Formats: sequence, structure tokens, C-alpha cells
Amino acid sequence: MPIHSKRGETLSHSPIRVLMPFAQATKAKGNHVYHLNIGQPDIPTPLEALEAIRKNNETIIQYGPSEGLPSLREKVANYYESLDCKISSNDVFVTTGASEAIIFALFACCDEFDEVIIPEPFYANYLGFAHTSSIKIEPVPSSLEEEFALPSVIKFEELITSKTKAILLCNPGNPTGCLYSKEELTELIKLVKKYDLYLIVDEVYREFCYDEDFTSVLSFPDVNENVIVIDSISKVFSACGARIGFLVTRNVEIQKVVEKYAQLRLCPPYYGQKLAEVCYDYALEYIQAAKAEYAIRREVLYKGLSAIEGVKCYLPKAAFYNMTALPVEDANHFCKWLLTDFTYDQKTVMLAPGSGFYMHKVYGLNQVRIAYILNQHDLEQATYCLKLALDQYRNL
Amino acid sequence: MPIHSKRGETLSHSPIRVLMPFAQATKAKGNHVYHLNIGQPDIPTPLEALEAIRKNNETIIQYGPSEGLPSLREKVANYYESLDCKISSNDVFVTTGASEAIIFALFACCDEFDEVIIPEPFYANYLGFAHTSSIKIEPVPSSLEEEFALPSVIKFEELITSKTKAILLCNPGNPTGCLYSKEELTELIKLVKKYDLYLIVDEVYREFCYDEDFTSVLSFPDVNENVIVIDSISKVFSACGARIGFLVTRNVEIQKVVEKYAQLRLCPPYYGQKLAEVCYDYALEYIQAAKAEYAIRREVLYKGLSAIEGVKCYLPKAAFYNMTALPVEDANHFCKWLLTDFTYDQKTVMLAPGSGFYMHKVYGLNQVRIAYILNQHDLEQATYCLKLALDQYRNL
Repeated sequence: MPIHSKRGETLSHSPIRVLMPFAQATKAKGNHVYHLNIGQPDIPTPLEALEAIRKNNETIIQYGPSEGLPSLREKVANYYESLDCKISSNDVFVTTGASEAIIFALFACCDEFDEVIIPEPFYANYLGFAHTSSIKIEPVPSSLEEEFALPSVIKFEELITSKTKAILLCNPGNPTGCLYSKEELTELIKLVKKYDLYLIVDEVYREFCYDEDFTSVLSFPDVNENVIVIDSISKVFSACGARIGFLVTRNVEIQKVVEKYAQLRLCPPYYGQKLAEVCYDYALEYIQAAKAEYAIRREVLYKGLSAIEGVKCYLPKAAFYNMTALPVEDANHFCKWLLTDFTYDQKTVMLAPGSGFYMHKVYGLNQVRIAYILNQHDLEQATYCLKLALDQYRNL
Repeated sequence: MPIHSKRGETLSHSPIRVLMPFAQATKAKGNHVYHLNIGQPDIPTPLEALEAIRKNNETIIQYGPSEGLPSLREKVANYYESLDCKISSNDVFVTTGASEAIIFALFACCDEFDEVIIPEPFYANYLGFAHTSSIKIEPVPSSLEEEFALPSVIKFEELITSKTKAILLCNPGNPTGCLYSKEELTELIKLVKKYDLYLIVDEVYREFCYDEDFTSVLSFPDVNENVIVIDSISKVFSACGARIGFLVTRNVEIQKVVEKYAQLRLCPPYYGQKLAEVCYDYALEYIQAAKAEYAIRREVLYKGLSAIEGVKCYLPKAAFYNMTALPVEDANHFCKWLLTDFTYDQKTVMLAPGSGFYMHKVYGLNQVRIAYILNQHDLEQATYCLKLALDQYRNL
């Protein structure tokens, strides 16, 4: 029998998806699962975009350009204008989800064994993307006590070696819901310019900032060579299954490389691109309504969690996540137990264990990421369910 | 200014897509380009499948399962039954095009610097996939004189080293149009079992075999551990832009690894999967009609090419490609010239230069890959146009 690859063996399972079979099993028994574990909003995709797909009269679903449909690239460039980012459509590459955009960015910026500095906790799949591209992540710790604020520039600078090629941020933060200010980004930009590094910023949650304005790294002057932005329609337009993301950079050398990786996989999905085009036509009104809804949910979740004894949480500034410490020793065990051993009124809750968002799994052991992507009523039910579960778990 | 990666620098441009800007430029001048360069059929995607997308009433385009929609995996497994391949839906992974399936297969089977043996010429993007996954391709030469028949097993065996992990075939062949027989595959299977290798077979053209029956490597007994099949709806159902492919294997260890790579990119595109489901419902009638059409085109192209002085070609057995030797020294130059300097009646032809399909670019220099994906009339016009172009080029 042939032996599969070592890299395939050492690639981690997605900590978010690893509990899925247990969720399916409890559902198969007739139980309802409140999915607070995944950033899959329950807000409808823009109606006009869905309608455009229904009216599509293409007779051959052909290959498109590797960089994406020109019409979509143009719309995305126009949208960036509204964020005070001067972008030409040539700077926009349509990708198969933000996942592919990150992979392209890492392959374009880094060789094997190069290092990328990332504030921790971070989006769990960054680990898998780093593994696939054979690069090393150097985490800069941030803490729940400080509401996962961006570590000081000195902490980043301490980690820079001759192998460091980039700093990768997720702003607004998944899993933390934190938001980095213009001042903080200004300092980081000075640093990346000083050391000739790339600054890759995953901005897929940018439209959901509740208290302060968002600043895109593309809005800074004189950063054309350094900045790569990762974007997506998945969260903003509640269209995760369309698999449409973007890599945006004004760095012409990076564009040339990304173009080659893009050609290699031929083109992004046609229908997703057609959906995305119409989403941008209705962006303003749609996003306003979605943001208002998430703002309410943010409060509901915070209130619900604050009422549970022993839970440590904070009011997140942006995105739709909250990294919360539970009164448990091992949240991995608790999250699984919720699906295998607990129900209240035939309902249970699915959460993402916190350690999956840390480089070293000894951190965040009592933390969970909670996505506030359910409607107010369900969110109230879910937090109540969680409260009862914790009561029961404590007495095991 | 930060320096992009060496691997990004050394990745080759797709030889098929590299001429695109010149095609766009001549089109911008009002000229018509006969695209014989790319496997993008002009046959409509199944009407019923397009109609199903128009009737789709989903309100949220959500993430689906990483392995693909269960309903689609089931349909694909059933389709394999009709090819005498006993496949369970768990053996089918839906991927974002066959491209992603090949990448998954290479990452799952091979570590960095491992070797994969591939008959040459081969699908040009295999080079890019090997580059991305840091593996080495060992080509086994086949020749136009022998109509690119599968090299003898001895030639494969001679190349096996301690680093060899797999043999990769494209059957039916892109770019050659060749078809490997049951007897030839039987011998190769003995070899992979003897040396504990994987046999990865890209079967995306399997439905277009004109003279002899197709044999899938999944139809052989006792090869569960060795065989991985790459599949796609792109060519069979004329749906290249949907980006739906499949990785099919009964090897449970490979399944576990592929599942992790699949989770990392979350899920395949939703709309493409819904389209694919309906394609399989109408497979039998649709494929019969498409195959009959390609059979006619195959004859038209062969007749047209045979009538051109100095052209060496053969009647391909399968797929919709023909690897043809032209009376030119450097087909790269000629293919570019066709787009930049030639028109007849405001028309020209786009071909894929042959050297792009060889590991070492000194081979196949006078060859081109011609896809017979245009209708009979256009194909006649295109070959006539090519004849005139060669006359003119000869006299430069």
C-alpha cells in the first residue's frame, strides 16, 4: 500500500469543521443545533443578486478570464473609491473565496521557510494556508484581558528576522472582533516600510464596525509596494457559498505573480461572479441594513453572555465574533460535549473551541469563538441554552 | 521595496493563456479569432441544468459541506456505476475544477521533492501544479510518429527511484487525443502495485472516445489503495466556468487527507454544484449528442489539416485535441504571428504552441495543440485560414 504524504498527515483539521460529524449526529436524532460556530450569516443574500442569477440567459457556462470578469473587477474598484482607496480594476484579482486570495498572497510573497508575523489569536485556517505554502507563522500574542488590542509595534519588531517577509493582519478581527485604528496602522506601516515587508490585511469584515470608522490599509499614501488586501463577498453580502473573494494590490510585481497562479486554476466560478456584480450595485443600502442587524445581535450576545456566571467577555468593536472565556478547563471537551451529551428542550449550541485560533494549542483552552450570526430570538435562545449547559457541565 | 518570492518568479505562465493579450488586441481591431487554442467547447451546457439554476429559490447562498453537496456526490457515484466502477458517495470529493482535484492529489500523495512520472507531452498546467506542490515531474517521452501511444511499461520502470510516489496519466489524452487500452492499463497497474505507487488518472475527457471503448482505472479490481481519478463537468457538460471537478478514490487514508485540504478552502462553489447535479440527470442523452458532434468535427479537422502541405497529423482516438506538427521552425513565433501580423478576411486562428506541453521546451517546437471545439463550418473556415497563414508565413 502506498504511503500518503507527511505534509498531508501533519496538516491540521479545521477546528471549526472537526465537530461537524457530532452536530450531524445530534441533528439526526431530531435535535436543533444553534450554529454559533461558523461565520455563516442567516441574513439573506441580496435579493437583486439572486434574481440576476435567475434571469441569467447564458447558454454556455464558459471559462472566464483568470483575473476575473472585467465588469466585476471594475465594480470592485469603484466600491474601493467609496472607501477612499484609489484602485484601478487591474489591481483587483477575483479569487475563489478569500481562502484562495490568501494562498496566492503567501505564494507570491514568501518562499519556503519564510516567516510571517500574525497577531494571535488568528483565523484558524491561516495555519493551514501556512502549512500548504511551507511558511512559518510567528505569532504576536494579544490577550482577552486587553480585548485583543493590537500588540505594540515593538512586539512585532522583536520578531523580525532575515526570513520575515510579511505581517498578516485580520482587520476587523476574526476571531476577536477587534478593530485596528488608523494610528495603530500608521505605526505598522512605518515598520513594514522600514524593513521592506509586505503588509497583508484580511479585510473581509470591514463593513461591520459598530463604534468607530474603519480604515483600510489601501487608503494610506505611498504603500503601493507593501500592501495586499484580502477581500470577499462571503460575509458582507451573506454569500459564503458563492466562493468569490478578491486579492487587491497596487504592487505590479505581485500582480504579475498572482496572474500566473490565477492562470494555473483557469478562472474563478462564473455564477458567483455574476452574483457578486449585482451585490456591489446594491451595496450601500444592503450593508446598512445588515450592519444595523448585527449591531443589535452584538448587544444581545454580550448581554446574554454577561449574565452567565464565570464567563469573561467584552463588547467586540467589529465583525460578528466574540472570543469568550468560559468557566471550563478545556473548551474542546465542552464543545464536543454540547453536541454529544447535552440538549435542553431538544436544542443545543455549537461553538468553535478557542485553542484552534492559537498557534500553540495550550493557549485559549478555556476560550470559544462565538459568531453572532443568528437572529435576535435564536441568539437569546442559544445563550440561554449555553447558560444551562454550563450549569450542567459544572456539576458533572 | 519588498521582493516577491522566487517560486512566484519561477512559476511559468500558462502557455495557453500567455497569448491572450494578443488575441484581445486583434479582436479590438475588429478581427475575428477562431479559438482552437483552448478546450472551451461551443456546445451549449445542458439546458435542463441552466434552467434549474434559473429556478433556484435559495435565499442564502451558504457554505456547503467541504466534500461537496451529498446529493451531488451521490449522483456522481451513481454515474460511475454506469462505467462499471463501484464507487460510494464517500469516495467522491467535489472540487473547484479538476485543477483543484489534481493539487489535492499531489499534496496528499507527495512530499516536497518527491517524483511523479508522466507521459510527455502532457497537459501544460501539470507543470504549474508540480511547481506549486514542490514535486518533480519525470517525463516519459511519447512521439507524434507513434501517435503518442503509451510508452512501454519498461520505460516507466526505468524512471522509478526511491522518490517516485505516483504515475500520472491523462486518459483520454490532452493534448494528444490518445486513448490507453485496457491491456496497457493492466500492465501499468501491475507496475504501480509492484512498487507501491499511486496511479493518478485524469479522466475528464472519458466520454469522448470515437473508435474504442474507454476503460477507467477505477474499474479494475484490487486497486483501491493505488488509484485516484480526477474528473470534471467542464468538458463533458460544456460547463468550464462552473468550476466543478471531482477527486475520486477508494483509498481511505487519502480520503482523510483530502478532507483536510477540502476543509481548508471551506467548500466548492454552490451554483456550480447545483448545475452539476442536473447535468448528471441528463448525462446519457446529452453526452451521446455531444460525442456525435465531436466525432464529425474530428473528421473535419483531420481532413482540413491533411490537406495542408507539410502538416503532420493523425486521427486522434479520443478527447477533442490533436497534436499537430506544422511546417514551421518555432510554433511559438508562428502562433503569436497569427495574432499580431496575420488576418484573412478579418479572421485569424489561435493555436496552443506545442512546446508548452513538454517538460523541456526544446521538444515539440514545431507542434501545436488544436482543439476541435468549434462547429463544423467554423472549423472548416479556421483550417482554411491556417492553410493561408502557413503559405504566407513560409514566404516571409
